[in-house]
Amino acid sequence: MVEGEAVTEGEASVLFTPSGRQGKVPLDSTVLDAARQLSVDLDSICGGRGICGRCQVRIGSTKNITRDEARLSRPGPTELKYRGRRPLDPEHRLGCAARILDDVVVDVPPESQVHRQVVRKRPEVVDIEVDPVVRLYYVEVAEAGLGDAGSDLLRVMQALEADWGLTDLHLPTALLPDLQHNLQAGRSSVTVAVHDESNVTAIWPGFHDRSFGVAFDVGSTTVAGHLCDLLTGEIVASHGEMNPQIRFGEDVMSRVSYAMMNEGGADELTSAVRSALDKAVGTLCGEAGIDRADVLEVTLVGNPIMHHLVLGLDPTPLGAAPFALVVDSAVRMKAAELGIEANPGAMVYVLPCIAGHVGADAAGAMLSEGPQLGEEIQLMVDVGTNAEIVLGNSSRLLAASSPTGPAFEGAQISSGQRATPGAIERVRIDRETLEPRIKLVGGSAWSDQDGFEEEIADTPVTGICGSGIIEAIAELYLAGVIRPDGTIADLPGGRVVEDDRTFSYRLWNDPIIDVTQADVRAIQLAKAALYAGARLLMDHFGTDTVDQVRLAGAFGNHIDPLHAMVLGMIPDCDLASVSGAGNAAGTGAIMALLSKEARETVEDLVHSVEKIETATEARFQEHFVAAIAIPHESAPHPNLEKAVDLPETPSVEPKRRRRRPANAR
Amino acid sequence: MVEGEAVTEGEASVLFTPSGRQGKVPLDSTVLDAARQLSVDLDSICGGRGICGRCQVRIGSTKNITRDEARLSRPGPTELKYRGRRPLDPEHRLGCAARILDDVVVDVPPESQVHRQVVRKRPEVVDIEVDPVVRLYYVEVAEAGLGDAGSDLLRVMQALEADWGLTDLHLPTALLPDLQHNLQAGRSSVTVAVHDESNVTAIWPGFHDRSFGVAFDVGSTTVAGHLCDLLTGEIVASHGEMNPQIRFGEDVMSRVSYAMMNEGGADELTSAVRSALDKAVGTLCGEAGIDRADVLEVTLVGNPIMHHLVLGLDPTPLGAAPFALVVDSAVRMKAAELGIEANPGAMVYVLPCIAGHVGADAAGAMLSEGPQLGEEIQLMVDVGTNAEIVLGNSSRLLAASSPTGPAFEGAQISSGQRATPGAIERVRIDRETLEPRIKLVGGSAWSDQDGFEEEIADTPVTGICGSGIIEAIAELYLAGVIRPDGTIADLPGGRVVEDDRTFSYRLWNDPIIDVTQADVRAIQLAKAALYAGARLLMDHFGTDTVDQVRLAGAFGNHIDPLHAMVLGMIPDCDLASVSGAGNAAGTGAIMALLSKEARETVEDLVHSVEKIETATEARFQEHFVAAIAIPHESAPHPNLEKAVDLPETPSVEPKRRRRRPANAR
Repeated sequence: MVEGEAVTEGEASVLFTPSGRQGKVPLDSTVLDAARQLSVDLDSICGGRGICGRCQVRIGSTKNITRDEARLSRPGPTELKYRGRRPLDPEHRLGCAARILDDVVVDVPPESQVHRQVVRKRPEVVDIEVDPVVRLYYVEVAEAGLGDAGSDLLRVMQALEADWGLTDLHLPTALLPDLQHNLQAGRSSVTVAVHDESNVTAIWPGFHDRSFGVAFDVGSTTVAGHLCDLLTGEIVASHGEMNPQIRFGEDVMSRVSYAMMNEGGADELTSAVRSALDKAVGTLCGEAGIDRADVLEVTLVGNPIMHHLVLGLDPTPLGAAPFALVVDSAVRMKAAELGIEANPGAMVYVLPCIAGHVGADAAGAMLSEGPQLGEEIQLMVDVGTNAEIVLGNSSRLLAASSPTGPAFEGAQISSGQRATPGAIERVRIDRETLEPRIKLVGGSAWSDQDGFEEEIADTPVTGICGSGIIEAIAELYLAGVIRPDGTIADLPGGRVVEDDRTFSYRLWNDPIIDVTQADVRAIQLAKAALYAGARLLMDHFGTDTVDQVRLAGAFGNHIDPLHAMVLGMIPDCDLASVSGAGNAAGTGAIMALLSKEARETVEDLVHSVEKIETATEARFQEHFVAAIAIPHESAPHPNLEKAVDLPETPSVEPKRRRRRPANAR
Repeated sequence: MVEGEAVTEGEASVLFTPSGRQGKVPLDSTVLDAARQLSVDLDSICGGRGICGRCQVRIGSTKNITRDEARLSRPGPTELKYRGRRPLDPEHRLGCAARILDDVVVDVPPESQVHRQVVRKRPEVVDIEVDPVVRLYYVEVAEAGLGDAGSDLLRVMQALEADWGLTDLHLPTALLPDLQHNLQAGRSSVTVAVHDESNVTAIWPGFHDRSFGVAFDVGSTTVAGHLCDLLTGEIVASHGEMNPQIRFGEDVMSRVSYAMMNEGGADELTSAVRSALDKAVGTLCGEAGIDRADVLEVTLVGNPIMHHLVLGLDPTPLGAAPFALVVDSAVRMKAAELGIEANPGAMVYVLPCIAGHVGADAAGAMLSEGPQLGEEIQLMVDVGTNAEIVLGNSSRLLAASSPTGPAFEGAQISSGQRATPGAIERVRIDRETLEPRIKLVGGSAWSDQDGFEEEIADTPVTGICGSGIIEAIAELYLAGVIRPDGTIADLPGGRVVEDDRTFSYRLWNDPIIDVTQADVRAIQLAKAALYAGARLLMDHFGTDTVDQVRLAGAFGNHIDPLHAMVLGMIPDCDLASVSGAGNAAGTGAIMALLSKEARETVEDLVHSVEKIETATEARFQEHFVAAIAIPHESAPHPNLEKAVDLPETPSVEPKRRRRRPANAR
């Protein structure tokens, strides 16, 4: 007998693990009925008809109750004949068939819980409880009879209320033909998908237990999609492909220009990205071997321009002040309205935007990173054409965007390019010889290692990408080639070459990849803008230090934290606390796909975050000017100084003063 | 000063007529503001910006306050320059511009009331208060500014709340591009259509004051549409055209058979009727010279089979017991889902059905006839392939359908046909000579009048329609040719002809149109079913008499009450209280189009009406058998006996007994 429970005749005492819920139930109750009576989270789609196999349990034990099969009824015909999609584990019983004959401990394994946890890799963020906005319910409906049995619709609604407690459901008129045909085909039994406990969005004949969703992160360069099983929370396939808008312009601002300059240009951009979403759903379903019609839900994040283009909105107002969004709240629509072939009732949830240049991608990253969950002050930076910056902790959150321009994406850099194979993405420069070592996107060898020659035979060096130019400039600074003011010093050794009135550093010879003075200036402006934005938020927050820095986005994941700090892109911080945030925005989209609560969280976060407008704040300009030097000199860098030998200031005395200007005269 | 009101300094006392509302308002208030303050029904779409001209008022007078223009401010630039679509009557002032300078009586003419009354022709039913489910609201939106002015959507919603008190509005994502473009095109002013005070369904740039709706009555034979101005309640165009489903079968049951026997047959029928709806909207808009995009709302009634086919539902379950409807409650959907080209946000409201064979047409007729409004017991009959019967008064309502079969529609009659030109629809038979007089559908002359020859030269006689066969049989009974048991007596005069073992009455010679014994039997069965249904409801109600009989539907309007009663189709009733209900079902659709409250009323009516199933009631069979004779002998007919000389029973002794059977032996 379970401790502390007085059992009267005709009742048994049941303890469910791991929930710890316990109570008395009538003898001969099914385990599923007992679980419902005691509000224990035990899954079922078929409503206890021995079809779905989702309510599997096993007998547990405690010191008071030993493991004893006889405490449950022996397997009867339902269990012995059960051949459902989810195999019945030999140790398991069907909760809807096994009856309670005596006091018993029943263990509910994780896969039998509706709200099972998806364990995330990072310990500091909470796990996701799988509780998607769409759920499946199986019902057997009374046959129509003469008299007032009521319409098909009424009888289905009555069954959904009787079996599942669902009331005030709305079934769209467009589904009535499906209702009729599937009731016939399923011999008066159907499975319905219910969205947000309020709308029926799909109907299948008989029993159906496949429910999937796709989470999209629509980047300027890449459209990434993740196909998730909405019953288990499992990611069953992931796929990324080039955003086909690339043909209208490499960076987002050039696409805005395209929309502005060409009649119907915005529509072309919209069609392009929507077709990519549809194609990705097809690819994902193909990889996982599932039917598109089983995709019931889609979520989506993206920067404000991608967000507007996906929704068919003209992005040109986002190209200039006041950067007004048409909509910033979360958006719900049918997948079909975006041209996505999925279940006809499939819905799309677009995460909210934070502000004119802080998009749904930043909102998704915030949801995933959870800065509001702890007391540590977290700085989250997503670097693109504009840097999206979020700062805060459990007490307060702030967000801003900084006009970094596209230099970090390789644009405005003399040999810059997107991070595609052939681009230099890692750079090391010997502090003595000033000789470089490089590594390419997609490559595995450094240029002084075996195998590099083979790599470039296959994929020749073509340019330098954003993370490459950052490393190059940081390394050049550490090697004394670049002075704190950003000028390139004319040092011996053959790597520094004269270039009109300034100097360049020759990073590669075949083809020639130079880091020019103009390149350094472009990166200085960009990093100063980024730093000034972060600094402005720190002022508003009232702090001089941050506890964690998270670099989000594809680019953020390629930046070496040390080099970012050497350059002064981010405030000083313990290097161990600076890290890439992985696919934070995409993870946020997955969370919103798997959990209704995550949607509430992100909407609350976006509502509560304080939006700081960098363009109108005088202090932003002050921080910007102060941050142009490398490293900026307005604040001490105790952490950076611990981590790396910084050059003295002034770093290296020039051996000779500018020759060329003298000669030129 | 208005009686009973103490006016303090800085205030004026205002009395609005005809509402009688009065109160004090600050001096210099506009009349519109004063009306709002005092909850007076004064229309405005532009929200008081001198654009729409809908708030026109005039100065009234009472014995205490004489008519005096000076009590309102003199017309200023807004009124002097006003050139809106609704002309400013010389006697009128713009309520939003005229300011109150002193105590005043203000009269609100009917056309300036939002909830104006549409006066109906029949005195016993209430007028319709025009209060459609969709309304237009004009707003001027704050321009976006740097900082947190919010998204376009937010600013529009804020303006709708500030100017119109509309909260928690939902704007579908598909309208966001319109929102963006129309805010630009309207220089930050837009007019929005709001459906049911909850959903934005359309957006126009700037000011827009055109809002129309179409009410449809989808009959088996004819699709009738009425285009209404939703701002005034006026019917601006009406149009009827043949239901193109006719090519799949004359009567509804033959269409059900087509759906049952042919793969995709139901879909063909659905496409056919939907295309007729779309075509009718085009015709109506063309006639009225309005843009389809200004059609914002559609309502629809029809019998259960038409109802299901319009909604894309297979009607075959309605062809046999238990006659289960897929849906019986009111249905809402987008007009676009029915293939109707109108405003993309236009919605359709399909009135509820009462039961498996008592459709939305009967519900519409009930709404229009209002049996629940008085104490008189009303019997409403809509005759089609099944007769839909409603009986009751303010205390109780009952409904049933009777399986009359298609005889009343001219089917199963030897020379029967639909009521199209060429069909005999009126018949008189001389009681002495037994010679007939006839009149044709679409004709104006009886066959013994001038002009008839010309008519048949143009449109020859082709057959006899439902109302024609009823009159013919009733007249034959009154002339003694048909006996109470329905047999045709072999009378001299050349009109009664031998026809195998029975006799026929030759109604017409070129071509030969006979009323055969089988025709009489068919009508006897049909009228007995109709009478038995009505009688069954009377039993349930607990009455032997009814106070009013309303014959609904196209056929009902063509039946002569006297003949219907002679035949025993309907219970005995004062002939003055038996009448055609006109287009009662269509009127119900118009009411639901113009008035939100009418929708609530019809949904309540359908919910409260008691559904009586004729098929399972033994008494129905008893009444049916008793009602086969002409006139049925189970009840006295005091009213009928007063109105017409009925033949003695047995009416006429046969001059000779059946010769033929004897000869044939």
